Amino acid sequence: MKLEEILRHCDHTLLRTTAVWEEIRQIVDDGIRYECASVCIPASYVKRAAKYAGGRVKICTVIGFPNGYDTAAVKAFAAADAVKNGADEIDMVVNLGFVKDGLWEEELSEIRAVKEACEGRILKVIIETCELTEEEKLRLCRVVTEAGADYIKTSTGFAKGGATREDVALMRANVGSGVRVKAAGGISSLADAEDFLALGADRLGTSRIVRIAKESMGQTT
Amino acid sequence: MKLEEILRHCDHTLLRTTAVWEEIRQIVDDGIRYECASVCIPASYVKRAAKYAGGRVKICTVIGFPNGYDTAAVKAFAAADAVKNGADEIDMVVNLGFVKDGLWEEELSEIRAVKEACEGRILKVIIETCELTEEEKLRLCRVVTEAGADYIKTSTGFAKGGATREDVALMRANVGSGVRVKAAGGISSLADAEDFLALGADRLGTSRIVRIAKESMGQTT
Repeated sequence: MKLEEILRHCDHTLLRTTAVWEEIRQIVDDGIRYECASVCIPASYVKRAAKYAGGRVKICTVIGFPNGYDTAAVKAFAAADAVKNGADEIDMVVNLGFVKDGLWEEELSEIRAVKEACEGRILKVIIETCELTEEEKLRLCRVVTEAGADYIKTSTGFAKGGATREDVALMRANVGSGVRVKAAGGISSLADAEDFLALGADRLGTSRIVRIAKESMGQTT
Repeated sequence: MKLEEILRHCDHTLLRTTAVWEEIRQIVDDGIRYECASVCIPASYVKRAAKYAGGRVKICTVIGFPNGYDTAAVKAFAAADAVKNGADEIDMVVNLGFVKDGLWEEELSEIRAVKEACEGRILKVIIETCELTEEEKLRLCRVVTEAGADYIKTSTGFAKGGATREDVALMRANVGSGVRVKAAGGISSLADAEDFLALGADRLGTSRIVRIAKESMGQTT
């Protein structure tokens, strides 16, 4: 697969807590230059980044992130606030306490509330696979599908593990046809990226692929 | 210092992402039994815990947690939502991007907005000391004081470091007289707890002190 094609599937991501505007601006510049699917940045930078990008790259942000235990009301408000500030895509985290307690109706209701608050923007639902049993993963594939989310996403990148090939394949096989898959967390090489895409991921949450692109293009130009 | 006295300064804490209701209920029971200052739990459990506790122990929760980069509007909404659900105390995280960019007015404004949303409930401001330079810590002591928060708090417990003796002493010496200090993260023994209190901390965010109390009382009764 061509590097350019891989880059088109990347949500070029910077979610470090201490990231400053100059770093975010660089992420936006790189997202534009390498034609990434989006740039994924902290919510407090969305307004400024959206203005700066001026539509040249999609702006993605995260809510209920990374711990997932804000109330549904707060998650929905955060989604609406992000949309108002110019976000094109929202990555939310499920409530893992709900999952562990089997409160599937509550989780379904929470995702639906956030989807509604997104007003047509893309919603990705992070299920944090490293914390889940096989049964919980399967159940969440159904809940995310039923809630009408656009993507199911493996990981926040802030827990003990990231995307695995097994989880991407499992998710692709078990979500509905209208739901796409995003792999995130620990994607560190082109081989990783190609594998995840081949296994059915449509998006990759990573900052390293752009770094690889820069190095690679630096060598050839 | 007597164990009972130490326990009165503890925010008995469970903020693991996968915590289920039975674990939260146990934290509330223990907070009541050991007469802790509060129990500190995820926002999505506040309503149920407040109803269960029925005023027998203060309910504390966290917002903008642990990454701190939700917008000020979302943090203020989250505080109001927590208060509505029965929270007595709110622990918010500063925006470390603002801090690293020297946007002190923005940080001051954010804390003020959350304080207002708290409607008189106690507000603690987590500055995440392990990510800060000495100068940033000193500046935040002034900002937190000026914003009218009730406490300054060292750490979320989700970053690379927790409370240190040096930071607690620095905070006590540099916040205004109306601001108290909460040490959190990595407090694992009674010696730690006594040291932090002696250095000027008024609250300790920990789950281990109650565990120690249980073991100790189990041995003597």
